Amino acid sequence: MTIYIANSTAPVNIATLKYWGKRDVELNLPTNSSISVTLDQEDLKTFTSVATSKDIVDDSLWLNGEKQAIENNKRLRNCLIDLRLQRRALEDNDSTLPKLSTLGLNIVSENNFPTAAGLASSASGFAALVYTIAKLYQLKISSSDLSLIARKGSGSACRSLLGGFVAWDMGNLEDGSDSKAFEIASKEHWPEMKAAILVVSDLKKDIPSTSGMQLTVKTSTLFKERIDSIVPDRFKKMQTAICSKDFETFANLTMMDSNSFHAVCLDSFPPIFYLTDTSKMIIKLIHLINEFYNETIVAYTFDAGPNAVLYYLEKNEVKLMSFIYTFFSALPGWDEKFGKDQLLHFTSNYSENIKPRLSINIDSKLFENVRKVILTRVGPGPQDTNETLIDDKTGYPKSIK
Amino acid sequence: MTIYIANSTAPVNIATLKYWGKRDVELNLPTNSSISVTLDQEDLKTFTSVATSKDIVDDSLWLNGEKQAIENNKRLRNCLIDLRLQRRALEDNDSTLPKLSTLGLNIVSENNFPTAAGLASSASGFAALVYTIAKLYQLKISSSDLSLIARKGSGSACRSLLGGFVAWDMGNLEDGSDSKAFEIASKEHWPEMKAAILVVSDLKKDIPSTSGMQLTVKTSTLFKERIDSIVPDRFKKMQTAICSKDFETFANLTMMDSNSFHAVCLDSFPPIFYLTDTSKMIIKLIHLINEFYNETIVAYTFDAGPNAVLYYLEKNEVKLMSFIYTFFSALPGWDEKFGKDQLLHFTSNYSENIKPRLSINIDSKLFENVRKVILTRVGPGPQDTNETLIDDKTGYPKSIK
Repeated sequence: MTIYIANSTAPVNIATLKYWGKRDVELNLPTNSSISVTLDQEDLKTFTSVATSKDIVDDSLWLNGEKQAIENNKRLRNCLIDLRLQRRALEDNDSTLPKLSTLGLNIVSENNFPTAAGLASSASGFAALVYTIAKLYQLKISSSDLSLIARKGSGSACRSLLGGFVAWDMGNLEDGSDSKAFEIASKEHWPEMKAAILVVSDLKKDIPSTSGMQLTVKTSTLFKERIDSIVPDRFKKMQTAICSKDFETFANLTMMDSNSFHAVCLDSFPPIFYLTDTSKMIIKLIHLINEFYNETIVAYTFDAGPNAVLYYLEKNEVKLMSFIYTFFSALPGWDEKFGKDQLLHFTSNYSENIKPRLSINIDSKLFENVRKVILTRVGPGPQDTNETLIDDKTGYPKSIK
Repeated sequence: MTIYIANSTAPVNIATLKYWGKRDVELNLPTNSSISVTLDQEDLKTFTSVATSKDIVDDSLWLNGEKQAIENNKRLRNCLIDLRLQRRALEDNDSTLPKLSTLGLNIVSENNFPTAAGLASSASGFAALVYTIAKLYQLKISSSDLSLIARKGSGSACRSLLGGFVAWDMGNLEDGSDSKAFEIASKEHWPEMKAAILVVSDLKKDIPSTSGMQLTVKTSTLFKERIDSIVPDRFKKMQTAICSKDFETFANLTMMDSNSFHAVCLDSFPPIFYLTDTSKMIIKLIHLINEFYNETIVAYTFDAGPNAVLYYLEKNEVKLMSFIYTFFSALPGWDEKFGKDQLLHFTSNYSENIKPRLSINIDSKLFENVRKVILTRVGPGPQDTNETLIDDKTGYPKSIK
């Protein structure tokens, strides 16, 4: 019995121009185009292995070691239907190909970051799933067209099919066939772009983003202005800023769009709150840092949760980390990226050169709900790998919890 | 030597349709019309006494017992100039009148609520000041026209010149002569309207409202939609709701407009935050209460700070207070309004009839930053009083700290 196995990894992406609102809930068609930065898989990724064989009759999914119930997971099933249709077309054209489209799939997926971190794993998850099955099926299809399929799994997943700086064109067609991701610029275009994620613990998660965005579409009176006018204008400007590596414009648009997104959440009824008091203190700290240097060296952005993602350029790392490390030195995550000497330099730079010139006193107690720092940078799209989560003798996960 | 003295009190008002944005900073002309409820002076008021005599050469102000520096208080001086001009007109027409317009003024003012409560005392303060000096000067001028003068002191003060349900028409004229308050309905029209203020302690106050609103005008991309379209529409609807005593519409518009105001604050750059995590928990509690009763029995609104003002009708007091008293029973403020039996009834009603039917558990720890409850209701405009803060033998404050 032949067991076919494919393995790959896919990245997390964090939007700098936010996706919020669907014009078609079934197809995950958005009310506006969005832009994101793909993050390095060394730090954040989903690793997925897929197996198929004549003995695998049903589709099964293991996520972080636990088998999932997928019978009612319509989004997942829609992705599988699309992928099988593409495979079937190949098989119909070439009768020598094994009829994989008729077999079941064992999908085994693991994230290298804790789900508890509150980082959207659905984007990297669906991207890895679609990319790996496409590889298993040997589909000849561009990343951009694969993103059409991943989009049906999770809207923002379409952006994780590409690396670097990625746009998701909302498209106009009713069937969604033009609502897909494309590359604005590769990571090689602007490799200096780094990101620091401050993971913030939440009292209680507000409404999930899927239902939250539709509440906004239905009830926010400011939302129409955002999608009709504000975002289309920002989209063009941000695209230009990325192409010309204009960090200041990129950063200001990123911060403004994060605020605009949370503003229409607050304008929903009942209002939706993802930012906590800790998130707000981080926002104030970032504005203080930019004011201190009299230059925009760092941008914040917040998804549907309290975690802050900070974007900055490598050349400003000492400037930024002298603040950030000083306030968050107790958190896990620093040693993996910086040596002891570098870390010491951050704190001494802060106490010697920054603190004496600061007009206000920053109370570090305000940041006590920050749990972890993840240091990363712009990264590539999905990657092939020879590692596997599947036992090549059985077609089933090597270790099942 | 004759000493002329006048005394009166003026109310606090809390907007249900928010004033946020000036089109003329000097004249306090707003970018949108607003609506408020005037609160009962039994609970919240500014008490002001004013004296003038030939021996009083300069203008002086004592606020809560402390003499204030008013040389650079342009807003106050503008009010005094207008009032003196009106007095001068009377004196020019009737030579028997004493020439009070040429004399200095001793203004003594006290609030019956702590400034620390974070309740905007500038509205009641300027209303009391303008009303009392107008009385001292025996001006024959309507409350609505007096509101023109108070507006120059503090925008929202114009609404405190009237009782009941008050609108501030933004006006169109450049000189602001049509930007004044008028009564939508007297308190007798809808006397059942009650208010409960939950005073929330803040880590640190965000930007003061005067500069905050201009930051929004300058930087928020959603603000234009709010003032061009959202607020004008709500203004008409809220006026109608008040006239027809339609609480549900009134309440929903009040909550939505509070959210809209805080949304454009968040959309400012840098963003402005007045709501804290505690404010958000109160918002969630209010939506939970309305959902529980399957009826909108209470509305929240938040000014430029974390304090919640809840509006409700007297007939729903038991329904509302069974929740509110249960969670906030430890706060000062209850005994002044409710007997022991009533309070006991609130808690037993909650534990017997409400809690067993609640689908979620409310964690009362989330409300630990609420400091005080102020129970009040709709009230009248400025009131004359025979009490005085001024020694009628000297024309100076009876007690100076």
